[in-house]
Amino acid sequence: MSEPLRLGIAGLGTVGVGVVRIIRQQAALLEARLGRKITISAVSARSKDRDRGVSLSGYDWENDPIKLATRDDIDVFVELMGGEDGPAKDATEAALKAGKQVVTANKAMLAIHGAELAELAENNGLVLRYEAAVAGGIPVIKTLTEGLAGNQISRVMGVMNGSCNFILTRMENSGKTYEEIFAEADGLGYLEADPQLDVGGIDAAHKLALLAAIAFGTRPDFAGIQLEGIERVSIDDIRAAADMGYKIKLLGVAQKTGRGLEQRMQPCLVPDTSPLGQLDGGTNMVVIEGDAVGQIVLRGPGAGEGPTASAVMSDICDIARGWRGPVFGQPVASLQSAVAATSQRPAAYYLRMTLVDKPGAMAKIATVLGDAGVSINRMRQYEHTDTNAPVLIVTHKTDRASLDRALCAMGTTGVLAAEPVALRIEEV
Amino acid sequence: MSEPLRLGIAGLGTVGVGVVRIIRQQAALLEARLGRKITISAVSARSKDRDRGVSLSGYDWENDPIKLATRDDIDVFVELMGGEDGPAKDATEAALKAGKQVVTANKAMLAIHGAELAELAENNGLVLRYEAAVAGGIPVIKTLTEGLAGNQISRVMGVMNGSCNFILTRMENSGKTYEEIFAEADGLGYLEADPQLDVGGIDAAHKLALLAAIAFGTRPDFAGIQLEGIERVSIDDIRAAADMGYKIKLLGVAQKTGRGLEQRMQPCLVPDTSPLGQLDGGTNMVVIEGDAVGQIVLRGPGAGEGPTASAVMSDICDIARGWRGPVFGQPVASLQSAVAATSQRPAAYYLRMTLVDKPGAMAKIATVLGDAGVSINRMRQYEHTDTNAPVLIVTHKTDRASLDRALCAMGTTGVLAAEPVALRIEEV
Repeated sequence: MSEPLRLGIAGLGTVGVGVVRIIRQQAALLEARLGRKITISAVSARSKDRDRGVSLSGYDWENDPIKLATRDDIDVFVELMGGEDGPAKDATEAALKAGKQVVTANKAMLAIHGAELAELAENNGLVLRYEAAVAGGIPVIKTLTEGLAGNQISRVMGVMNGSCNFILTRMENSGKTYEEIFAEADGLGYLEADPQLDVGGIDAAHKLALLAAIAFGTRPDFAGIQLEGIERVSIDDIRAAADMGYKIKLLGVAQKTGRGLEQRMQPCLVPDTSPLGQLDGGTNMVVIEGDAVGQIVLRGPGAGEGPTASAVMSDICDIARGWRGPVFGQPVASLQSAVAATSQRPAAYYLRMTLVDKPGAMAKIATVLGDAGVSINRMRQYEHTDTNAPVLIVTHKTDRASLDRALCAMGTTGVLAAEPVALRIEEV
Repeated sequence: MSEPLRLGIAGLGTVGVGVVRIIRQQAALLEARLGRKITISAVSARSKDRDRGVSLSGYDWENDPIKLATRDDIDVFVELMGGEDGPAKDATEAALKAGKQVVTANKAMLAIHGAELAELAENNGLVLRYEAAVAGGIPVIKTLTEGLAGNQISRVMGVMNGSCNFILTRMENSGKTYEEIFAEADGLGYLEADPQLDVGGIDAAHKLALLAAIAFGTRPDFAGIQLEGIERVSIDDIRAAADMGYKIKLLGVAQKTGRGLEQRMQPCLVPDTSPLGQLDGGTNMVVIEGDAVGQIVLRGPGAGEGPTASAVMSDICDIARGWRGPVFGQPVASLQSAVAATSQRPAAYYLRMTLVDKPGAMAKIATVLGDAGVSINRMRQYEHTDTNAPVLIVTHKTDRASLDRALCAMGTTGVLAAEPVALRIEEV
């Protein structure tokens, strides 16, 4: 294996430039580690003339990524264009059909079309690798697929969108509203061109779908994810949760249940002393639980040029070393179709209510909860000057159906001054 | 690759039994993931009759591990006997000479003989894998060797001996002395037969030597490690450090400097709010810093049947999938010989002194520090009933030589009622 490994890189945004930079600056280190050179035969991007701060001299330029993907002088097609469909998917398919190994950072494409692309790769005896698609620089795909291959995985969860975690922690530290911090993050360029991908939880859900597929041997099932973004997380809830010893995180959780695969991406409360609770700013964290290993926690930068390029390089180096392996942890033909299941497992919930301040109001709420079989673990009513009383409740473990019955019945009591807020408290 | 991968397992202690259990209980899962069966041809251990709570029926028994290692009907020799030399090393060499892949959990053997064993493996086109040798269930060898292969590593550090971390955290939580908690840990069976391996930092240093080799492309250099155990960490220091916002950890740090490879395994102070500072009990944590990725933190169980067996299985599964790779991250022939360097980089230090309570005592200490060029960042003198005054100082960054000059000069002031304690504060 002494010939160079020849790359064709499509997409020269932050990540693509980062990969080019590493290959140029760490050439000697890479050759020492891999026993062969990594070379770039050609690149492709939307604009040829843009100054990207890195020299592209010595690389052929292709305007058409499909042309690039099928060149005779590349061994690996590196897809860094992004996008669920369109050029990224067309070029990836063309590369696999042309017998090229593929490395991609494209979580959307894999979350939606992962199984079919994996079939194409495996039928052609090729690898399709995507370490950079999940949690940036954290080698979580490798950890789950290889490092924990001897484990029956019971749960995978994590904070996998740095922008959302930045917004939530900035809200907590500054006391500002969601709208204010959203504008700040947008101004800092922390958000995708379509911010819904971030704050709507879609980007993080793409990642969760990939982790769940590997963990539980199912085809990626993005559509089966119970998805809720952070747009409705208020500074009041962040303050109240902190007062009760919790942090609010956009938490992705995947779990195999008797009735199917449970995948949730939603704002949850976690204890402020837990590793997840202590995760501030743009950092990502993935927690993996297996029958043999117990709990493994991985923490690191979830985005940015260096971290994401580092993950892409991990895949490239594996291919250079001759690594072959299934795309989703086992041959794609043996993956089950995921049966989406909503969580039936009891959980504790955080409730925040605003009650009209009149005698018996609290009693009505307590009665309604009791009637629905929801018992109260902790309750706080805050001093208040206006006519409405803010009330917090942490319930004992209850199933969601009972809680929903209670929430519905509350609406009929006439003591609610506003829509109650209910958030799941995830056991971590 | 549809024939079974046939194992010979030498050593049926906790870890060996754990591996046998996983292979028996997860046979279907492993076959689905690997596309082939994992089978055990034969096993070997000191006592054949001991009841290990797992059936060994269907496995041949070998009294001689070398016989086991060279059997025609095994593809992989799994060395779980332990020990730096003796049967473990003899059998490992025999296996490699007989063309068998080797998986081991033996940190001592690799820290001392790793380079020569790697040469033997690579010259025979075989792999020698040891995920279980470092930090138990945490896939840190894989992360460093493969997941971060595109990075120039600047620092690797971690808490890699669960027993020491258990003792230190128990001391803090209980207020008991080192001797009391040592006895408690020993009674719980948390310590090696030779406790010095744990509390002397030797076991953790073996692990550090392996991480440093991979991170910096050097031959493992256990002898070059600046080694200090936890025996001299007093409850007074744990209390005082906590009062200043720090935790005391047995921290391993490896760093490449201009003058060579710096490897330290010693009690250090870390901020109590940092991931390392919040690591309680037997859990392990490894922190890896690379030029592209930034900082990655891995946390998980560092010992025990399940976690360690999980790591052994990771190596076995990689071999089953056809993974080949260098033992220490690059071909062993290209590894440099490590040049041991002691830390010249300035660091802040924690000083605890007991001063005879007479006028001018504190002034003498302050003068001595100033004369040595060591400046004080924070200082505390505690109220005291006896004639001696406990004094804490956190210095600004200083080089160790200046600090040593100051400590030496203090001895001549006649105001010290006891030997001063000086501990490095590691920036994490």
